[in-house]
This record gives sequence, structure tokens and C-alpha cells, in this order.
Amino acid sequence: MQDFRVELSVRDYECDLQGIVNNAEYFHYFEHIRHLFCHSVGLDFAALHDRGVDLVAIRAEIDYIQPLRSRDRFLVTARMERVSILRWAFVQQILRQPDGVVLAGGRFLVTSLINGRPKVDPEVNAGFEQLASGVEAEADSGPAAG
Amino acid sequence: MQDFRVELSVRDYECDLQGIVNNAEYFHYFEHIRHLFCHSVGLDFAALHDRGVDLVAIRAEIDYIQPLRSRDRFLVTARMERVSILRWAFVQQILRQPDGVVLAGGRFLVTSLINGRPKVDPEVNAGFEQLASGVEAEADSGPAAG
Amino acid sequence: MQDFRVELSVRDYECDLQGIVNNAEYFHYFEHIRHLFCHSVGLDFAALHDRGVDLVAIRAEIDYIQPLRSRDRFLVTARMERVSILRWAFVQQILRQPDGVVLAGGRFLVTSLINGRPKVDPEVNAGFEQLASGVEAEADSGPAAG
Amino acid sequence: MQDFRVELSVRDYECDLQGIVNNAEYFHYFEHIRHLFCHSVGLDFAALHDRGVDLVAIRAEIDYIQPLRSRDRFLVTARMERVSILRWAFVQQILRQPDGVVLAGGRFLVTSLINGRPKVDPEVNAGFEQLASGVEAEADSGPAAG
Repeated sequence: MQDFRVELSVRDYECDLQGIVNNAEYFHYFEHIRHLFCHSVGLDFAALHDRGVDLVAIRAEIDYIQPLRSRDRFLVTARMERVSILRWAFVQQILRQPDGVVLAGGRFLVTSLINGRPKVDPEVNAGFEQLASGVEAEADSGPAAG
Repeated sequence: MQDFRVELSVRDYECDLQGIVNNAEYFHYFEHIRHLFCHSVGLDFAALHDRGVDLVAIRAEIDYIQPLRSRDRFLVTARMERVSILRWAFVQQILRQPDGVVLAGGRFLVTSLINGRPKVDPEVNAGFEQLASGVEAEADSGPAAG
Repeated sequence: MQDFRVELSVRDYECDLQGIVNNAEYFHYFEHIRHLFCHSVGLDFAALHDRGVDLVAIRAEIDYIQPLRSRDRFLVTARMERVSILRWAFVQQILRQPDGVVLAGGRFLVTSLINGRPKVDPEVNAGFEQLASGVEAEADSGPAAG
Repeated sequence: MQDFRVELSVRDYECDLQGIVNNAEYFHYFEHIRHLFCHSVGLDFAALHDRGVDLVAIRAEIDYIQPLRSRDRFLVTARMERVSILRWAFVQQILRQPDGVVLAGGRFLVTSLINGRPKVDPEVNAGFEQLASGVEAEADSGPAAG
């Protein structure tokens, strides 16, 4: 069973004056792929927000191993682990393409807020359980990149 | 002959508190595709910068026709027109997919700086002439999205 | 009578691999000061959005005259002009500090959407008229920077 | 002895479709204040980069405690701890103003690269030792916000 994975490439505006991708952009990459991962089981952040449910990170950990540079191609992966009733962890990596070298790792602890308070939402819970079970990953024939 | 075009999709972090893509992101989309367009004739912004040549916008005009929303798919197009010895214009559009409705238009006047001063660079000039001639567009079999 | 004005300084993450502020950030600077300008007459974008009113740009024009670099200090100005019943223009500049050299100019045509459709909102209209009259500007003793 | 601290306020474009500041922006806030902190002892990222020295994060940890919203005012703090010959940690917080409630905490492990390889740079080392000694903090009469 393989992690969820999507290929992206570096856009020049994501690089900073050091000529490498700014550290904050890794949050964007990881977040974007978490959203696609969630969407693969029908969880949509905009739709959830419209009915008062927000999925929020409560802790982020990123290891920067080697920098990304202009036009680099890379895979972003995601898998899900349950941590408690209300907390889930996304475990993610950035792998350079085509050689697969690990450039960064991330772990994001998330929870659901209902009208601003931590609370289990049944739809979110069911979706996250499906993500954690890894069933989705077998159907990973490819969300559109971009 | 068709304009250069690349398909992208909206990433949630590009939306602002109004739930639509923030206006500044359109600059990013247009810029990213200009860079891919330039790269299609061998012009690389990072490499040019390393030898003292910067391509910079001197005027930007964007018409926002309909907003982009979470997960929308869209084409970004680009074509090039010579304006003067030192100035070139990229004319661009954002077309919703799959229906092709025009959501935004952009026109970006650019010039080349050599060590900070406006000056013609032969490599840039040759590349831009090739872009303006439209020869590249016929080979548009598809830069990787993302 | 003086335009509304707020001092900002360049944050390093706003610079790109050319070592200068990325073109899209100018849009952020201008937008941020438009929001403070509107707020000076009581118009708050988040509060307006919550009651179904969105102020959106329909056209942006930016002239880039000289680049901004790491740690540069600059004023962003704003004044308002009525264009039609539904359309207003913010006219803005970026002035280097302390010498006041004009580094960029911007003109942003905006309108109000009510539940997604162009329509006059009385609160917005009254606020914009006050901004256009310039009465506010005389009281410009200084919104907090940042 | 007090940590280095600078007051900022939320800009609307930093909020995402959930109406709260996007997680990646916290990284920007923390980074910006680290750069001001370093600059308080004469270390300038752009100048260092120009002579081949880059200060890079190798690990980031952020705890998101309560969200930041449109127009919130907050202090970002920074102090420095030596971890090894080559590694230093910035320990930071975001404190809501005016009540001082801790909204987020961050720990950023950094190192210096010389021409891309981890290596001690004497100027960086001396500056970081000064930051870690806390001598600077006593002189914290106020870097300009923004």
C-alpha cells in the first residue's frame, strides 16, 4: 500500500532571495496535497467551512533536508494516522523527481472545529477513518497536478 | 496558430477570506506561465539572473472578469508582442475549464535589465523574437502542469 | 489635502530569486493599504463579507518604476475617485523613504458585489463617498504600520 | 531580560477561505522577526547571500493555539539558543495584543551554509553568540514595525 502522492514543480515566485524555495512554501505544498488527499474521500474544505466546520492544524513539524530550487519537480506524499478521538496526524514527504531523494518531511496534527470549538464532525470522522485505513490509496490513479 | 497554454487548478491557500482567489495570485499565475513560455525557447530566469540579466515587468494590467474559486481548473495562455527595441508585451488570459469562459485578461510590459540597467541582451532578444514569431506555439505539446 | 498614507518596509520573504520584491507583492501592499483606508471610514472587509457584501477589483494597473529591495522603507498612499454609480477607482503610489522617490503607481477599479452580483450597498457607498471627498485624509494622524 | 519583540498586525490577504490567517503565514511572521532579530546584531540575509553565506532552517515546529483573524494585533518574540557547533535554535511566540495571550509558539533550528555546504561562518557565529547572550535584548528599544 502506497501513500497518496501528487507531482508538483517549483514555480519561480516561490523562491526567495537565496534562490531556493522559501521555507513557508513547504507549508503550502503540504497543505495543498492534504486538501487533495481529503478530497479523494469527498472532504472539501470550502464546503465544510460553509457549514461551520473547519479543519485546522494545531501543530506542524517540518524537516528541511535539501533545498528545492527553480523548476525542480517533486512528489508530495500524504498518509493519515489517528492520534486521539479529536486529533489526527498527516505524515508527509517531499521526494525529488525523478530520483526519489527525500528533500523534506512533515507531520501535521489536525483537529476539527465546529463553529470555532474542537468537536468531532461525523462526516470528517468517517472520511479521516477512510484515509487512515489506506483504502483510498489503492485507488490512487492520479489527482490532476497543478 | 494558438497561444501558449498551461492548465492549472486553484489551490485552497490561494483563496482569501472572501472565498475567492486573491487578486495578487493572478500575478503569480500569469508570471508562472510567462516563465514556462520563456523556458520553451530556452530562457531561464534563474540562469539569466546568475549572469546579471533580469527580466522585469514595468507595467501590469489585469482585468478581473469572474472570480476563481476553490479547486477551479483553468488554462493560462500567453503570447508575445514586440513594443519597442527594449520593451515587449505578454498578452495573457485565464480561461475556465472545461467551458473556456474568459475569467481574466492580463497585459504585462517587460524589459531586460543588465546589472540593473535597461539594456538589450542578445540571448533574451533572440528568445523573445522567437516567442513573438509564434513558432514555438506550434510545438506546444505540453509543458508539465504544476 | 494629502492622500492617505502608511509606512511599510520590505520583508525578506517578499523578495524573489532576482533579489527584488516580487511583482505580486505590490498588489498585496496596495491592497493592504486600501483596506486600512476603507477601515478609516468604518468599512471592514471581513465584516462586509459576513453580511454578503464583497468589494472586488475589476481592473488593476501597476507601473513598476524602480524595484524595492530587502529592508527598503516606503510609504503606500491611496486616494479614491468615483467612476460611475457602481465603480470606484483607488489611485495609489509607493514612495521610497526617506527620499520620497516614486517607485510604483497603481490604479484599481473596484465594485461591490452583493451575494455575488454587482450592486450598490448603501454602507459601502456612503463610506466610499467619504473617502472620495477627502474629509478623512485631513484626520490622517496615522494608522499603525504593520 | 526580555525576548526580542516586534508588533505586527494581520493583513487581510494573509487570511484564507476559513477567515483565519493561513498556517503558512505564521512561518512568514516568525521568519520576518528572526531576520529583524539577526539584523539587530548586524546580520543581513541579503548581504550574507551576496557573499555566499545562507542561513537556512533545517527544522521548524509550530504550535497553533488560537487562530489569528483579520486586523488582529500581535507581538512576535524571538530568542536564540545554541544547540551545537553548527546548529542554533530560535524560540519564538506570537502574543495577541493588547492582552498578551499566547496564540502560537515556534522553534526553528537553523544552520549556515557556505556555498551550499554546512559550515561555520565567523561573522554569523559571532552574531549568533551575541543574540544567544541576550545582550542585544536589553537594548530592544524598538525596530520599526511593518
